[in-house]
Amino acid sequence: MDACALGLDFGTGSVRAVVVRVTDGRLLGAAVEPYTRGDGGVITRPSEPHLARQDPADLMACLERCALKALAAAERSDRAFRRDRVRGIGVDTTGSTPLPVDESLQSLALDPAFRDDPAALAWLWKDHTAAAEAAEITAAVRAAGRPWLTRCGGVYSPEWYWAKLLRAARTSPAVTEAAAGWLELCDWIPAVLCGVDEPAEVRIGVCAAGHKGMFAADWGGWPEAGFLASLHPRLADWRRSLPAAVSSAGQAAGLLAPSWQSRFGLEAVPVSVGALDAHLGAVGAGVRPGRLVKILGTSTCDLSVGGERPVPAGIPGIAGVVEGSVLPGRTGIEAGQAAVGDLFAWWSRLLGGTDLDRLGEEAARLRPGESGLLALDWNNGNRNILADPELTGLLLGQTLATGPVEVFRALVEATAFGARTILERLEEHAVPVRELVAAGGIAGRSAFLLQVYADVLGRPIAVAASPEACALGAAICGAAAAGLGGVEELAAAMVPPPAREFAPNPAAAAVYERLYALYRRLHDHFGGVAAVDLSTVMKELLALRREAAGAA
Amino acid sequence: MDACALGLDFGTGSVRAVVVRVTDGRLLGAAVEPYTRGDGGVITRPSEPHLARQDPADLMACLERCALKALAAAERSDRAFRRDRVRGIGVDTTGSTPLPVDESLQSLALDPAFRDDPAALAWLWKDHTAAAEAAEITAAVRAAGRPWLTRCGGVYSPEWYWAKLLRAARTSPAVTEAAAGWLELCDWIPAVLCGVDEPAEVRIGVCAAGHKGMFAADWGGWPEAGFLASLHPRLADWRRSLPAAVSSAGQAAGLLAPSWQSRFGLEAVPVSVGALDAHLGAVGAGVRPGRLVKILGTSTCDLSVGGERPVPAGIPGIAGVVEGSVLPGRTGIEAGQAAVGDLFAWWSRLLGGTDLDRLGEEAARLRPGESGLLALDWNNGNRNILADPELTGLLLGQTLATGPVEVFRALVEATAFGARTILERLEEHAVPVRELVAAGGIAGRSAFLLQVYADVLGRPIAVAASPEACALGAAICGAAAAGLGGVEELAAAMVPPPAREFAPNPAAAAVYERLYALYRRLHDHFGGVAAVDLSTVMKELLALRREAAGAA
Repeated sequence: MDACALGLDFGTGSVRAVVVRVTDGRLLGAAVEPYTRGDGGVITRPSEPHLARQDPADLMACLERCALKALAAAERSDRAFRRDRVRGIGVDTTGSTPLPVDESLQSLALDPAFRDDPAALAWLWKDHTAAAEAAEITAAVRAAGRPWLTRCGGVYSPEWYWAKLLRAARTSPAVTEAAAGWLELCDWIPAVLCGVDEPAEVRIGVCAAGHKGMFAADWGGWPEAGFLASLHPRLADWRRSLPAAVSSAGQAAGLLAPSWQSRFGLEAVPVSVGALDAHLGAVGAGVRPGRLVKILGTSTCDLSVGGERPVPAGIPGIAGVVEGSVLPGRTGIEAGQAAVGDLFAWWSRLLGGTDLDRLGEEAARLRPGESGLLALDWNNGNRNILADPELTGLLLGQTLATGPVEVFRALVEATAFGARTILERLEEHAVPVRELVAAGGIAGRSAFLLQVYADVLGRPIAVAASPEACALGAAICGAAAAGLGGVEELAAAMVPPPAREFAPNPAAAAVYERLYALYRRLHDHFGGVAAVDLSTVMKELLALRREAAGAA
Repeated sequence: MDACALGLDFGTGSVRAVVVRVTDGRLLGAAVEPYTRGDGGVITRPSEPHLARQDPADLMACLERCALKALAAAERSDRAFRRDRVRGIGVDTTGSTPLPVDESLQSLALDPAFRDDPAALAWLWKDHTAAAEAAEITAAVRAAGRPWLTRCGGVYSPEWYWAKLLRAARTSPAVTEAAAGWLELCDWIPAVLCGVDEPAEVRIGVCAAGHKGMFAADWGGWPEAGFLASLHPRLADWRRSLPAAVSSAGQAAGLLAPSWQSRFGLEAVPVSVGALDAHLGAVGAGVRPGRLVKILGTSTCDLSVGGERPVPAGIPGIAGVVEGSVLPGRTGIEAGQAAVGDLFAWWSRLLGGTDLDRLGEEAARLRPGESGLLALDWNNGNRNILADPELTGLLLGQTLATGPVEVFRALVEATAFGARTILERLEEHAVPVRELVAAGGIAGRSAFLLQVYADVLGRPIAVAASPEACALGAAICGAAAAGLGGVEELAAAMVPPPAREFAPNPAAAAVYERLYALYRRLHDHFGGVAAVDLSTVMKELLALRREAAGAA
């Protein structure tokens, strides 16, 4: 029996585990375990709509059940499989999702003293409470004339590490006093699995550090302690608790601790350095130079890597350009949209729980332009290319005949238009995109959405063959950590070629050219790019609707 | 036993009848009969969302049942009542709701040859199929340099008589050939009740003619036949079928025909000249100089009358200034909003039928600004003050936490902001508004809405005591037609003083001052008034939301 690897993928609402064969990536077992606390694993507060937290204890309890199920499934599916064939473990998580830890790296949320304090929980990526602090950091970095924002689009986000730490320092004295430091969830999980309880022994991944933590080797690592202290003294203390060096996923963070060995029935195998879910999803979807992988989930991440031509360090409004963040030795490029699946789920929830598959089936029967609607996909702010969390949603064109299906289609189209702004921005800055591959939960489920994307983007979009691209990417890094090969080499063997491809329909693409021009007018005006005139937008939408009705 | 009058009020979805005592307006009997055809009486076509028609046969059948129920109720409530005490009948209907008739004034829809032709039905006020024709009429009147638009805000509406006739002439050859003429529903019903079958004997009310038909005595009555012929030859023919003179409601259109006498058990009593529902609603709510009556229903009509100072003939963007259209001998002023109750019903329908009273109860618990949302109330176009049917709805500020109640509150607020634009425009043009009285279905039902209106308008708003103000106004005109007094004199005796009053809350009014300023920016930009900047609107709404949350 060949070597296998275990991939663990901590998403927003559930954890997934896969057991795959290293020689060819064959899936032997998989399992999903939804989180149990809060609303689908997300702890919210009605009085603070931007708050979104997670309970690390909930995540670890689900991990245990999930990994055991995946291993049991592998045993059932292949009688030759034995647990000692698992040679490495890889981990990815959402991020930036930092959590405060004590001096032995235990999550403060596990301390009963903090049971009711949301500041002690993990601050989920989509927590937007730190909007003011993010703006303050942007202004402070600019005022200091330092380069720390050049690789993250020029604007620091409330979703990111230092903004959340500063928010906590400003608003939660008890947690601020008790926290010895803060770890990204993707670094904390491997530390827990390896039983690391000394801050000096933690291995930090370049992925979250470089994309969210303003870390880069060429400016000396983390932002200077003096600068951080000028924001809040504790930030400098917390910085000092972090290692000075970072690692790529695929390097080992340590060996599986004895307590986890006995729980899982595994040996003391290496656990890879952690990374963000989207980045390892890109690995599991076969990212390579010229191929952009879109991880379509609650939010969307667009990932690619540089090829022979150097990638410019600063692309305005693009979230991240970080060395080694996706594939070791290549420049990782990350962009994204703050609400995609979340936007559709919002609409379904607002309607009282309408089934999204049914909405999609009905929306697919409408022609482009027929809804008469145009939306901005900013219900969770705009991550790229405006990088402004203080933007909100907009829906325009509704009449007394507008129904929920028309609105749903407009929301799907809005996310496609948002995707197009990112693609255009990359190409304007010499990042070629010759292939588009979709992965993530939505990619496998909605042919309707992928067709709209192909029509709006005006180019084919393929679907990653693995429905568990993130967990597969994690497993690949687990195999690399075990010394079974380099990440890129292992991915070439383990990632199946893309499956289905959606080609643009020329007639639909022509209508979407016109709708996208209207979207850009709304986008540019409300996004503060340019004071373009919007007074004819409603009439142009009515004209497009009439044309669509006439084309029936 | 004193004299009584029967008032008949044909609304959008049902007909109402009241039997009232003439001396003091006491309500002896009332009944409502919902129409049976189409969607709540409105015949629509999925392929043509702007189409809204009604079946005259449905309306007449409902009228018969309704009047009989009201008379029976009067007999039950007061044993002294006998049907021979009914001395006059008054009628109001929606409008402009024209229907094509043959040479004996029979509705073409009653002819089996036109059973499946929606052009033969009554073209309901909210039918917006004639948008292009309305624009063509506006342009043609302007090009001809004629004054016919001066009393209707300067822009002809697709909701109005000649636009609908032109649309029919352009698109429905069979109806165009067969129609000897077109009557407003409010003129056709009295003609049917009086058994009039000669076009020369029809009495036309000044109300619909003056507000919707470009009729005014001082420019010689109807627009010239030559002008109408330049639009379409049949328009000139149809004009020639109309009487050259018009009458105010309160004058007699004829005597109740024998067939209706026997059906109702009434004598050959006078039937008043018909008028539009809102106008007689204003009469039934005690309209007088300085008092603006808001009829809050599916749409809203604002009505007042001139006092000693002359009312300017042309107020930009205000739908109508017509001599004698509300009270004989006074200048009637009409404005309105194209969707109010319809806008709320749309939202309820989109949500799958959520109860509007429940939405209102929950929305009442939100503070001004707390929703973070701002809407434009243009789902059915803008009637005043922009007079542009080709405008559509807009909703802005939504986040992933936005729920249906927040949106509902934003829609209610949007209609209040729209109401404020009208009030400001009237006062800018020297039409004083010292008192606001709300009437119509919504006024009696939603304390929440009236409080929002008081807060947004910054002044008290009283509620008409009669829940059936339109039907009461019709009954007053029936009594006047019977020679029992002048309309104004009868109204003084028969209309009870306003009941409940809603006073503005100063704290809420202060927040609404700021929200209204944002509404005006959206209104002016999307309405084509001025190219104002909107790039800070989302951020200002977030700031208002935070303040509202902080004020909790």
